Amino acid sequence: MSNNKDLIKALKDCGAIQIGEFILSSGKKSNYYVDIKKASTRPDTLKLIGKKAAEIIKSIDVDNVGGVELGGVPIATAVSLESGLPMIIIRKSSKEYGTGGRLVGQLEKGERVILLEDVTTSGGSVKEAVSNIQNEGGYIDTVITVVDREEGAEENLKSAGIKLITLIKASDLV
Amino acid sequence: MSNNKDLIKALKDCGAIQIGEFILSSGKKSNYYVDIKKASTRPDTLKLIGKKAAEIIKSIDVDNVGGVELGGVPIATAVSLESGLPMIIIRKSSKEYGTGGRLVGQLEKGERVILLEDVTTSGGSVKEAVSNIQNEGGYIDTVITVVDREEGAEENLKSAGIKLITLIKASDLV
Repeated sequence: MSNNKDLIKALKDCGAIQIGEFILSSGKKSNYYVDIKKASTRPDTLKLIGKKAAEIIKSIDVDNVGGVELGGVPIATAVSLESGLPMIIIRKSSKEYGTGGRLVGQLEKGERVILLEDVTTSGGSVKEAVSNIQNEGGYIDTVITVVDREEGAEENLKSAGIKLITLIKASDLV
Repeated sequence: MSNNKDLIKALKDCGAIQIGEFILSSGKKSNYYVDIKKASTRPDTLKLIGKKAAEIIKSIDVDNVGGVELGGVPIATAVSLESGLPMIIIRKSSKEYGTGGRLVGQLEKGERVILLEDVTTSGGSVKEAVSNIQNEGGYIDTVITVVDREEGAEENLKSAGIKLITLIKASDLV
């Protein structure tokens, strides 16, 4: 979305997005680097992300915002506070003890969830979180990501009937 | 703190605090039950918690708010957004790969951190988080907890030179 130039600038200013030549831990070369935690741990940038996502959510019929542990939680919290919608946290693995599965928060059967992610790459982990929500009886058809690396997440989610809304695409950066 | 009656009411209204007879998973009997996630996943109660904690922090010289994974993260996020202070997340265990240790966010040597917790019992996990912050060069002398079960956390933290500030004590509930 080209109208998110203010967000791109904010993420560059706080060092969450860097432009240059980088070798990723996978060994691949990249002409940008994303450390989204530098944005989600800063209240000014987090508030901007929350406002952008809440604005999109206004036009979507939804009951809860979901955040995937751990990176999605500050983002989902900011969107929950901004939109007034309750939050669901999707844990990475089931809690060893106590009641409940991978969802934290209250999800009634048939309620609509919109999932927030900080960064999407191939979409594998977000697709798993979508399944967790569906397994608990929730309805989900949309995911919002702050930065999409454009390495398959959109297509991967599309094949599961999920639309990926991206605040910043990798190709917007360079 | 008796002036947090509005917060106690809010937590009872959303089901985060229940009064009655309960058998805890430890087998012990209790005359109250706390499920703080019911409060931290609701924006209205989370906002109230954020305001209460931010008000306390105003009079404390501090550079960052810390949240312990996972329960402390929505609380610390709300306080970060309310106070304008950046956030540090203390992970439960080191990330298996990549750089960095147990802290997410940017902590400069000597910076002051105030730690937010959702519920304290014996204080074991929060004391460990305090050590993590100190090991990374941070200074910490205060922890704020939303609900203290009054089962040793205050004394345990005091022995480590840390003051525990409690929004709601178990003895306020019944």
